[in-house]
Amino acid sequence: MNEYTMTDIQNRIQSSFNAQGLMQTLGARLLSAQEGEVQIELPFSTALSQQHGYAHAGAITSVVDSACGYAALTLAPAGHEVVTAEFKTNFTRPAIGERFIATGRVETAGKTMTVCRGDVVAISGDSRKVVALMQATIVNVKV
Amino acid sequence: MNEYTMTDIQNRIQSSFNAQGLMQTLGARLLSAQEGEVQIELPFSTALSQQHGYAHAGAITSVVDSACGYAALTLAPAGHEVVTAEFKTNFTRPAIGERFIATGRVETAGKTMTVCRGDVVAISGDSRKVVALMQATIVNVKV
Amino acid sequence: MNEYTMTDIQNRIQSSFNAQGLMQTLGARLLSAQEGEVQIELPFSTALSQQHGYAHAGAITSVVDSACGYAALTLAPAGHEVVTAEFKTNFTRPAIGERFIATGRVETAGKTMTVCRGDVVAISGDSRKVVALMQATIVNVKV
Amino acid sequence: MNEYTMTDIQNRIQSSFNAQGLMQTLGARLLSAQEGEVQIELPFSTALSQQHGYAHAGAITSVVDSACGYAALTLAPAGHEVVTAEFKTNFTRPAIGERFIATGRVETAGKTMTVCRGDVVAISGDSRKVVALMQATIVNVKV
Repeated sequence: MNEYTMTDIQNRIQSSFNAQGLMQTLGARLLSAQEGEVQIELPFSTALSQQHGYAHAGAITSVVDSACGYAALTLAPAGHEVVTAEFKTNFTRPAIGERFIATGRVETAGKTMTVCRGDVVAISGDSRKVVALMQATIVNVKV
Repeated sequence: MNEYTMTDIQNRIQSSFNAQGLMQTLGARLLSAQEGEVQIELPFSTALSQQHGYAHAGAITSVVDSACGYAALTLAPAGHEVVTAEFKTNFTRPAIGERFIATGRVETAGKTMTVCRGDVVAISGDSRKVVALMQATIVNVKV
Repeated sequence: MNEYTMTDIQNRIQSSFNAQGLMQTLGARLLSAQEGEVQIELPFSTALSQQHGYAHAGAITSVVDSACGYAALTLAPAGHEVVTAEFKTNFTRPAIGERFIATGRVETAGKTMTVCRGDVVAISGDSRKVVALMQATIVNVKV
Repeated sequence: MNEYTMTDIQNRIQSSFNAQGLMQTLGARLLSAQEGEVQIELPFSTALSQQHGYAHAGAITSVVDSACGYAALTLAPAGHEVVTAEFKTNFTRPAIGERFIATGRVETAGKTMTVCRGDVVAISGDSRKVVALMQATIVNVKV
């Protein structure tokens, strides 16, 4: 629990997050949500692995995409939802860790389009290493 | 089962695919593997959904990333494995369908780097629609 | 000159192309324009070089971006212009050649957004080699 | 002139920059170079325009690509040059300004591959606005 738990933004995002079947399937949880920045935690499990036993690029991408999308949602105009138009992700190291923290941040927010950057940090004991960097385009759509 | 099932390439890729925990978690299966092109099928389930009930961009990306990676592997030099250095994916329509077929194709294969393009088609009855387009950089690493 | 020279599409694109100062500065010329596909030619010159004497990634990107944008324009709704929201380019070989041909093709055209793929081929005598691959998001804007 | 002008890094990059025909053609100049960060300035001129009179996405991309490549070069192992493997650029606003400053920064530097992020700021009088965001993969190559 954190200082944003009771805000409207946090509630809106937590309830949308709960509706994402994939986040439950992967075992991810919403860590924090504030204006323009959202964090999601993903504990490692072999259910997320690629062929060498590390976390699959797709699992890493899924959580940082959700983090970027929700970061955009915190700044979207009233009456709008967001969808990901596209993203690009670099994988900077093998995704090895006890858990991963994905952070999405709004860089520029336009009327119809938001550009976010995100990163994923692998955490093992005291070690913290960046394993992925995303740049994403999120589109506002009227509900 | 298809004409490539018994080849070395197919065996190599099927056994690597089986080792990807995430592919089992998502419910994906290897459809075909031939030189420079690999297809993976993903039946839709609510375990893959984003907040509107469609397939999550991360699930779609996971299967087309694996398809691109394995397409690169079919052309990798002997004694090499592949890892995804980066990819970019456009989501061209809501990912709505009974099932999805992800295809990865090698565009250019260098000594250390392979560039692939991929797409994901959503299938519902007779309807087939492209829902995602990927361009990916895959790196050969000595085992 | 080709079969599309006299069409409205060709005229619309040629006149927009002529208004692009950068295309003149680089020495590029419009080669062909048809529904969903546009080609631009760029003769090599040292004015386009990077530090090793090859064509600079930025020059190569400039012409394939214009080719993708104009391909999108051929399918844009009446009363709309296009702008590039983002693109991603892979450089698959050193851009060495007497001239380059950039092709942009529409992959999916939505109401507000078009996804294009492009490539750049280096030509030297009889040799033709792909030196770049682009995937781009083009947005329709009302004029 | 700045505090890095006389260092080896600055000299190495300035002399490589001078060898880039495209940078001269566009009218760009090297502003600063320090470990992991390089800035390039591009004054606006109609020779850089797209069809609406703004700076062309290709011109903007050219300078931020060079800034990212040189940022990577400041951290490359001895005896290595750098080439751009791929980049992705978002255009966040029309590129309108008296001049543009492109900054490239190293995010992660591996043995063979460096990931950089860059941005381009448009400057008009006191106004400074981000017009582009890049994420790039730069490869070290032995000379």
